[in-house]
Amino acid sequence: MKAMREIVLEGHIIDSWILPRVFDKIMDMGGEFEVVDFQIGTHKTAHSRTRILITGKDETHADAILEELHRLGANLPEVEDARIETAPADKVVPEGFYSTTNHDTYVKLDGKWKQARNISMDRLIVIREGEPVCEPLAHIRKGDTVIVGEQGVRVIPPERPRERTLFEFMGGGASPERPSANLIKQIADEMRQIRSRGGRIAIVAGPAVVHTGASPALAQMIRGGHVDVLLSGNALAVHDIEYNLYGTSLGMNIENGELASSGHKHHIYAISKIMACGSIENAVKQGTLKGGIMYECIKNRIPFVLAGSIRDDGPLPEVITDTMEAKDAMKDALQGADMVIMAATMLHSIAAGNLLLSKVKTICVDINPSAVTKLTDRGTAQAVGIVTDVGAFLPALADALGDKD
Amino acid sequence: MKAMREIVLEGHIIDSWILPRVFDKIMDMGGEFEVVDFQIGTHKTAHSRTRILITGKDETHADAILEELHRLGANLPEVEDARIETAPADKVVPEGFYSTTNHDTYVKLDGKWKQARNISMDRLIVIREGEPVCEPLAHIRKGDTVIVGEQGVRVIPPERPRERTLFEFMGGGASPERPSANLIKQIADEMRQIRSRGGRIAIVAGPAVVHTGASPALAQMIRGGHVDVLLSGNALAVHDIEYNLYGTSLGMNIENGELASSGHKHHIYAISKIMACGSIENAVKQGTLKGGIMYECIKNRIPFVLAGSIRDDGPLPEVITDTMEAKDAMKDALQGADMVIMAATMLHSIAAGNLLLSKVKTICVDINPSAVTKLTDRGTAQAVGIVTDVGAFLPALADALGDKD
Amino acid sequence: MKAMREIVLEGHIIDSWILPRVFDKIMDMGGEFEVVDFQIGTHKTAHSRTRILITGKDETHADAILEELHRLGANLPEVEDARIETAPADKVVPEGFYSTTNHDTYVKLDGKWKQARNISMDRLIVIREGEPVCEPLAHIRKGDTVIVGEQGVRVIPPERPRERTLFEFMGGGASPERPSANLIKQIADEMRQIRSRGGRIAIVAGPAVVHTGASPALAQMIRGGHVDVLLSGNALAVHDIEYNLYGTSLGMNIENGELASSGHKHHIYAISKIMACGSIENAVKQGTLKGGIMYECIKNRIPFVLAGSIRDDGPLPEVITDTMEAKDAMKDALQGADMVIMAATMLHSIAAGNLLLSKVKTICVDINPSAVTKLTDRGTAQAVGIVTDVGAFLPALADALGDKD
Amino acid sequence: MKAMREIVLEGHIIDSWILPRVFDKIMDMGGEFEVVDFQIGTHKTAHSRTRILITGKDETHADAILEELHRLGANLPEVEDARIETAPADKVVPEGFYSTTNHDTYVKLDGKWKQARNISMDRLIVIREGEPVCEPLAHIRKGDTVIVGEQGVRVIPPERPRERTLFEFMGGGASPERPSANLIKQIADEMRQIRSRGGRIAIVAGPAVVHTGASPALAQMIRGGHVDVLLSGNALAVHDIEYNLYGTSLGMNIENGELASSGHKHHIYAISKIMACGSIENAVKQGTLKGGIMYECIKNRIPFVLAGSIRDDGPLPEVITDTMEAKDAMKDALQGADMVIMAATMLHSIAAGNLLLSKVKTICVDINPSAVTKLTDRGTAQAVGIVTDVGAFLPALADALGDKD
Repeated sequence: MKAMREIVLEGHIIDSWILPRVFDKIMDMGGEFEVVDFQIGTHKTAHSRTRILITGKDETHADAILEELHRLGANLPEVEDARIETAPADKVVPEGFYSTTNHDTYVKLDGKWKQARNISMDRLIVIREGEPVCEPLAHIRKGDTVIVGEQGVRVIPPERPRERTLFEFMGGGASPERPSANLIKQIADEMRQIRSRGGRIAIVAGPAVVHTGASPALAQMIRGGHVDVLLSGNALAVHDIEYNLYGTSLGMNIENGELASSGHKHHIYAISKIMACGSIENAVKQGTLKGGIMYECIKNRIPFVLAGSIRDDGPLPEVITDTMEAKDAMKDALQGADMVIMAATMLHSIAAGNLLLSKVKTICVDINPSAVTKLTDRGTAQAVGIVTDVGAFLPALADALGDKD
Repeated sequence: MKAMREIVLEGHIIDSWILPRVFDKIMDMGGEFEVVDFQIGTHKTAHSRTRILITGKDETHADAILEELHRLGANLPEVEDARIETAPADKVVPEGFYSTTNHDTYVKLDGKWKQARNISMDRLIVIREGEPVCEPLAHIRKGDTVIVGEQGVRVIPPERPRERTLFEFMGGGASPERPSANLIKQIADEMRQIRSRGGRIAIVAGPAVVHTGASPALAQMIRGGHVDVLLSGNALAVHDIEYNLYGTSLGMNIENGELASSGHKHHIYAISKIMACGSIENAVKQGTLKGGIMYECIKNRIPFVLAGSIRDDGPLPEVITDTMEAKDAMKDALQGADMVIMAATMLHSIAAGNLLLSKVKTICVDINPSAVTKLTDRGTAQAVGIVTDVGAFLPALADALGDKD
Repeated sequence: MKAMREIVLEGHIIDSWILPRVFDKIMDMGGEFEVVDFQIGTHKTAHSRTRILITGKDETHADAILEELHRLGANLPEVEDARIETAPADKVVPEGFYSTTNHDTYVKLDGKWKQARNISMDRLIVIREGEPVCEPLAHIRKGDTVIVGEQGVRVIPPERPRERTLFEFMGGGASPERPSANLIKQIADEMRQIRSRGGRIAIVAGPAVVHTGASPALAQMIRGGHVDVLLSGNALAVHDIEYNLYGTSLGMNIENGELASSGHKHHIYAISKIMACGSIENAVKQGTLKGGIMYECIKNRIPFVLAGSIRDDGPLPEVITDTMEAKDAMKDALQGADMVIMAATMLHSIAAGNLLLSKVKTICVDINPSAVTKLTDRGTAQAVGIVTDVGAFLPALADALGDKD
Repeated sequence: MKAMREIVLEGHIIDSWILPRVFDKIMDMGGEFEVVDFQIGTHKTAHSRTRILITGKDETHADAILEELHRLGANLPEVEDARIETAPADKVVPEGFYSTTNHDTYVKLDGKWKQARNISMDRLIVIREGEPVCEPLAHIRKGDTVIVGEQGVRVIPPERPRERTLFEFMGGGASPERPSANLIKQIADEMRQIRSRGGRIAIVAGPAVVHTGASPALAQMIRGGHVDVLLSGNALAVHDIEYNLYGTSLGMNIENGELASSGHKHHIYAISKIMACGSIENAVKQGTLKGGIMYECIKNRIPFVLAGSIRDDGPLPEVITDTMEAKDAMKDALQGADMVIMAATMLHSIAAGNLLLSKVKTICVDINPSAVTKLTDRGTAQAVGIVTDVGAFLPALADALGDKD
């Protein structure tokens, strides 16, 4: 027997593509709809508002449609408190648990709407001291009170800015055939604006930054105060240190592209030297390490997270070898980020993307167009892709930021 | 001084993403809008209708916005006849010429709406014997009467189907991480449906079809009656003929991947043999060529266009070496196509895409995700991308069509 | 002042490209050489032998050349025992440490040649109970006796097989334009031969195996006894289990490509269910998990290593979250492997490649040609690349192995 | 019955990888060999010389091996005149025709060795006025005297330079992870050296040069006298002219990345304006076109070939629309080229590569690593690949050449 549900949509729902997505989703899922009420925002800054009646084939179908529409920003018209169940065991979810999006999220508890903390996608919401907190499955403990169902939960998808910006609402694709000079200028402008209003900028960087000769540019950006936090792995740090100690990366001389004598040992020597100092930080303090990305982070007290991977040699003492600890450290480090630039690392980009709110301005720079596709396919839909050589991009960005050495 | 224009939008304008695109474009271009009237389609099959007042900074700005909105499907509320000017010289356009989209297009002449013939993108509309005809610049002759401006011209963008289909309205991207088995089944179903209602299917194929061992599958599809026209180049035909005469492609044995003795000469021998016969058609009739893609085309009277390129050896007698003639032949061959499958050829895919109406179901199969990006970037927005190995795709499609040898 | 060194080369040094590489390296490094003695292998199975006098600009230059030639298989004519120094601290190398290649390696100790155990590239050789053992930097402890310099160390690069094989000596490159059907047949033949003589086959697989619909094929291969060990990560296991519990992968129905209702929760449910059972193994024993890759591993007692990454949800109980522990487990699991098939995972492929001997037959299957380039760039030069869709490759390989369900 | 053949190899046959390739080929083809005589070049500049006896399974097999070895540079010890047959018809080859390599080639006629003119790969050698001339199949006329078999034909593969250079003998691969700054400096040095000794440099460029904003850099290089000939197509010229007339490329403003008002018409306007002038050359002379790549070519009398393709709009008057004529024009234009830089165009790069001698220094710049793989797979083995963004590469190269505006 057919079943009906009513939803409400409000805001810039047409040009922020929320209403079209709602209609599409209903039709994709084989449902019917009737627009009960529609007030269109008659000019650029006016909101629209609509009530829509959804008809599914049966109760389950109607609920399934509702669940998907909720994720797009649809709300129930009359809202009761969110429903809560307890986790039956550590890392075990109650049936029907509410799975988070990466949008700002509010939960109705005791009749009041409260913003959930630490939101990132595909997690749960737990009530901790009366407040809704987003937690990964790994943190769920037996007896935790977990939100179930969509009732009493609201998500706020980002709205289209009222003017054209680099971070076009639809993000959309990544073509190698674009003039990057102009994009870089816009990114530099955006970075300066964010910093001038006290915002935070994170860089996620892979070892290709060093291989392609772009590490001095990144070091310069850190020294210039344009980076608030660095997320990377052992390899970037080792190659950066190798380059600063020996002038090579994986044994290849970055200046002339030739293999250095005994160069294949340099990355082991680099790690070994840091080990002898006890840590990267000590190596900087003792004067062993005198320049580079890691040096600038330490000198300028820029926090960094080096996450371990199974490809690592060493690893360096500061590397967090446990991946779950590393992920938690990354989540903390990204707290409050307004902009994230991902440079030439698919693993770290997707991992960081999973931890970001949808409203964070996200730029993914990679020579491989698939890197951006995979990032957005996995839910970081706001990412703007720039398909170019990171070895050319970062020096140009450092230049545009205007702190030439 | 500010200037205003009024537009009308009608149809499934929300879920076909026309209204959101109109709002986005106005904001992107720095204009303002006021929704004067809005009747929403209250259920799935009901049309919406809206009148919107656009405000630009001045007359030029307002016209520029109007021109872009027109391309998205916006119409002027009261329409006069289209305006006409004459071409000042061969291949020279009158100022303000109307540049076509790839959507169905109607022109108002003497108070009547007439559908323009031969529409494809980035061309002009000329009045020939009282009828609007779409022509490329190359065909414009001095004194031709050419439509200028948007007045009296209407474009009909394709609307979202009312149910979920393979050819999702938003097409959207091409990810290598999708299960192709199921997609192939859907494509086969669609092909059978099109054929059963008398529709036409075109294949655009590159030489990798032969290199990857998929040419027997394509030959089988032609023999089975699933292909109405083949668009390709000299290379595909030469490799197909080489394979059928010698079992090799560029000298490599397709069965065991080894280089055949004197194999490097085979493609020249293959061309030479056809030359000795006078044409591919003669080679089939004389029994020299006994199988393969070209053989099946000739045996089954399936028309084909072989367009020349600067990489060609030979070329074979049927190849059209003049690129402008080849393009015209391709346009003719694609007349009335309902579906086009593009297999592993960026050059021919983009060329064919330029010649297609937006309502033609278009599938682009390539191992390189950039091939699809480039195709859609150049205006063939309806293309659905399948990122896979054509050597696996075509045999699976032939299987799904059910004409196993 | 100029300095000279003498080296000896022996074996199939011409057609195994050892002698040409030696000449190239000397010239690249700006050295001179004189061939003192040369006995060419006069037929296919006869060895060649040569003594060559190298001249460098000075002692350091000559040593640098010698060090590189050693890695290519050049030996000193009269060999003394290997030299040994002690590690000054944990994870700190003595100056001039010998850095391993991925070739079989022998060390002269007390006048006798002994084979080093556990060889893989870029590690050290430590004397443990009188035997040379290859260890990563992470395992070096203060006081360990470490080999320094090339004296008394011999590496044996793999020689070209005397007949044409799939694993062509020069491996070399990866082109998407090859007929994969035949390659797959050859791989299946090779796998059967290896298994019939008691050899070991490892599979390294990424989550795209599940997304592309190839997991039943891999499960079938495991059930059929063609796989001795599986190396992968949390994502493959989660997606495999999600697929077997819910028919979806990341919420997409693998059979029809549609998004399932509440599908976005399935992977969390999948993890949660396994958590509730305590482990994947328990889930199989308790009948919760009834098919798939992980199921077949457990049912058939095929060992697997699931290495953690920062992208992981959960993770599943069997996942080794510490990357260094995971790497050690991978090294153990790859012990004695004769063949490794890497399927659609750059991270795990490169990590596994780092742990392999150069004589292990290594196949890297990826839709992205860069995956193979990166693998060989990082030292796994023996890898044969197959650029194709893993969703088509694995089913075809399972078919060729002949255990159709 | 077994059959034997004797060959001679001479030169730097070990470090130029000729001898190893010969051994490999014999083994790949299942033959046997005996080294009858071997004199090794005992130092860097001394030649080696060897005589080898090949044994095949029968006469045909031995001939097949010989034919392949010939292409690698193996010669018959006692050489009679080349054998000649007449072409039976236009564009038809005599049986056993000699198919050219891209190496320098000599033909023995009347007891004298004569160098074949116009050599490029996969063509025939015809005797014209007593001289051997290389001709494509398309130029063969009935009665032409064509070389058949390998007897009396010698090819000279390029030898490895005696020192390390950018154009490493083994070229080899294209990795995106290399520091391009240093490569660019080396290319600029090489270009200056070539020009200073009167050599010729050709640029092969695709339209992405304009889209990515690099056209001013290429114009600057032409103005600075670093380019002797430009090979391209209609699209590059149209986009270059559009950019110089309107500041856009395909309607996108290159400076700020935004779509210009009516920008979608600009490329048609650009063509139309040139049509109105009669030619690009006239447009420059009349002052209509005042800058850009085409402008600099005409101002500086740098010859250019614009080859037509089926994607072309227009085309411009200077475009050669017949592909066979265009190919002949490209062959003429490349005559005497010492270096060719291919920038972001697969079609034109492979077409040009087919026309080059193996000794021409060839650089292929593309953001897609497959572009280089395809080029070398199709026989242009000397190509050095640089995987980077052409929009960054050309400006950096223009800078390194030192003619900043």
